[in-house]
Amino acid sequence: MKSIAHLSSQFNSFLETKTQSKTPNSLYDPVNYILNLGGKRIRPALVLMSAELFDSPTQEALDAALAVEVFHNFSLVHDDIMDAAPKRRGQDTVHEKWDINTGILSGDAMLIWSYQCFENYKPELFYKLVKLFSKTAQEVCVGQQYDMDFEHQDQVKIEAYTEMIRLKTAVLVACAFQMGGILAETSEDNQQKLYDFGQNLGIAFQIQDDLLDAYGNPINFGKQIGGDIIENKKTFLYLKTLELSSVNDHNQLKHLFSIQPGNKNAKIDTVMQIYNRYNVKNEATKLIQSYTEKALEALSKLDLHEEKKTTLKAFAQELMQREV
Amino acid sequence: MKSIAHLSSQFNSFLETKTQSKTPNSLYDPVNYILNLGGKRIRPALVLMSAELFDSPTQEALDAALAVEVFHNFSLVHDDIMDAAPKRRGQDTVHEKWDINTGILSGDAMLIWSYQCFENYKPELFYKLVKLFSKTAQEVCVGQQYDMDFEHQDQVKIEAYTEMIRLKTAVLVACAFQMGGILAETSEDNQQKLYDFGQNLGIAFQIQDDLLDAYGNPINFGKQIGGDIIENKKTFLYLKTLELSSVNDHNQLKHLFSIQPGNKNAKIDTVMQIYNRYNVKNEATKLIQSYTEKALEALSKLDLHEEKKTTLKAFAQELMQREV
Repeated sequence: MKSIAHLSSQFNSFLETKTQSKTPNSLYDPVNYILNLGGKRIRPALVLMSAELFDSPTQEALDAALAVEVFHNFSLVHDDIMDAAPKRRGQDTVHEKWDINTGILSGDAMLIWSYQCFENYKPELFYKLVKLFSKTAQEVCVGQQYDMDFEHQDQVKIEAYTEMIRLKTAVLVACAFQMGGILAETSEDNQQKLYDFGQNLGIAFQIQDDLLDAYGNPINFGKQIGGDIIENKKTFLYLKTLELSSVNDHNQLKHLFSIQPGNKNAKIDTVMQIYNRYNVKNEATKLIQSYTEKALEALSKLDLHEEKKTTLKAFAQELMQREV
Repeated sequence: MKSIAHLSSQFNSFLETKTQSKTPNSLYDPVNYILNLGGKRIRPALVLMSAELFDSPTQEALDAALAVEVFHNFSLVHDDIMDAAPKRRGQDTVHEKWDINTGILSGDAMLIWSYQCFENYKPELFYKLVKLFSKTAQEVCVGQQYDMDFEHQDQVKIEAYTEMIRLKTAVLVACAFQMGGILAETSEDNQQKLYDFGQNLGIAFQIQDDLLDAYGNPINFGKQIGGDIIENKKTFLYLKTLELSSVNDHNQLKHLFSIQPGNKNAKIDTVMQIYNRYNVKNEATKLIQSYTEKALEALSKLDLHEEKKTTLKAFAQELMQREV
């Protein structure tokens, strides 16, 4: 089995050959720009890894991996407009570097391109891949809509939050895993297990993201600790604390998440004190573990050599122990 | 052969059964709203007509027709944002009734839905339809980009303008015709002729649109004559006059298309006087005829019963004699 780093790197070499040289530049320069901002290329690597698990050559999974990565970047371009985000991976977002219209239209061209990536597959595979892809893409839109709706909602339940991250983030991870299974033409039952594995891992991964933002090791984390707190982002930690806290803490937390004070560190400190008072770090860890276990349960039911399952299990556990 | 009106009505009945009842409403209400604003449903009717020409049941072409109509409406939603258009078919545009974020995301969901419309077809057909559809969709994006780029360009050549309307408008008409041919499993040569027929007809149709806006019969036209002039829209008439006119008229026309005077009728009168001085009505008519002839030439080469060709020819000529 190749490592994720190896697969990401294989994908990056492939991506380099796919730079859009088409005109007009006003449409395709932003496409190349966002795809070259980097990123860990985890999603496409998962497509390759999943195909390889079932003895299908990673080479033949590259187009499907590209579709997933192009789609992911399309969603970043449009989401950044909707979230009015000026920066992405430390660089200007597309609508900031160009303008909103460019972001909309180049994003549309990317979404269409992501479908075109599958055209090298024979019709039977094409059909299965595109159908799964469309279902996933539709769900990602629903997830983004929930995320935007939450901004205007006074109270968001943990179940609703989990459903939002399932749709916005986890289904694409699940789709990446299942695509490998489709390409390798493994059984539908195996495909479903792969999907379940990816989906639960994706949810765990996203809650882990929330956790690291507040409780990560500043030395390893790479970003400023408390970024979500500064941006008033309704994360698991915030929502869970609202559920658990006294009226006073509840109201103070809500107030803190409605302001943008000059002294950011003081705000982070106060919020962290409230979080700590209700031990939400522990709550998050428990939930991450619960979804990781669900993922491993799906894995255990996969019809696959034990040796390969061990590799996949190690990958899942490594992902959950990450500090970045 | 069923008439276009009959086919549109058949399509409308089908569309009614496809109202999105999915949640969240915040995502899907705008989808239903734009699809229910009406419109002549010409594009989906063309898919049905084309299938029927080759003895394929219109019933089985409905899903492809829906894909074309949903895609067309997706492009309206996103274009209206980019053009900052407040009204569409006399009603609020989606981003005006809701907001820009809703327009972006509901549009994305529509683009994905348009792909999902093909899922009832068997994989071989699905592959051919989706591949043509993606190519077309990508071209429509390029056409919209050219259209936006033109706004900032001092001089736009007629060839560039024609290429823009080919991409923005005509290729979807061509795609509609070819889809009927794909569904009827006619030869690739016939499919290409259908495509050429549709594309040339689409270009002729769009120039006809420009012509009617200035020279239509106010009684039949239904909209205000001169709407494009008020909106400073760079139409064929405007661009052709710039090419033909004296320095004085050239500069005056450019000036008039850079202002929004209170007295709209005076502006329309002055522009029309300049147009008339260079007989651009005649230039437009010649170009429309030339593209109509190209369409009819493609039609003549179709391997199809003469009787059916006559129907199609009558349709094309009727389209070019329309007053609305």
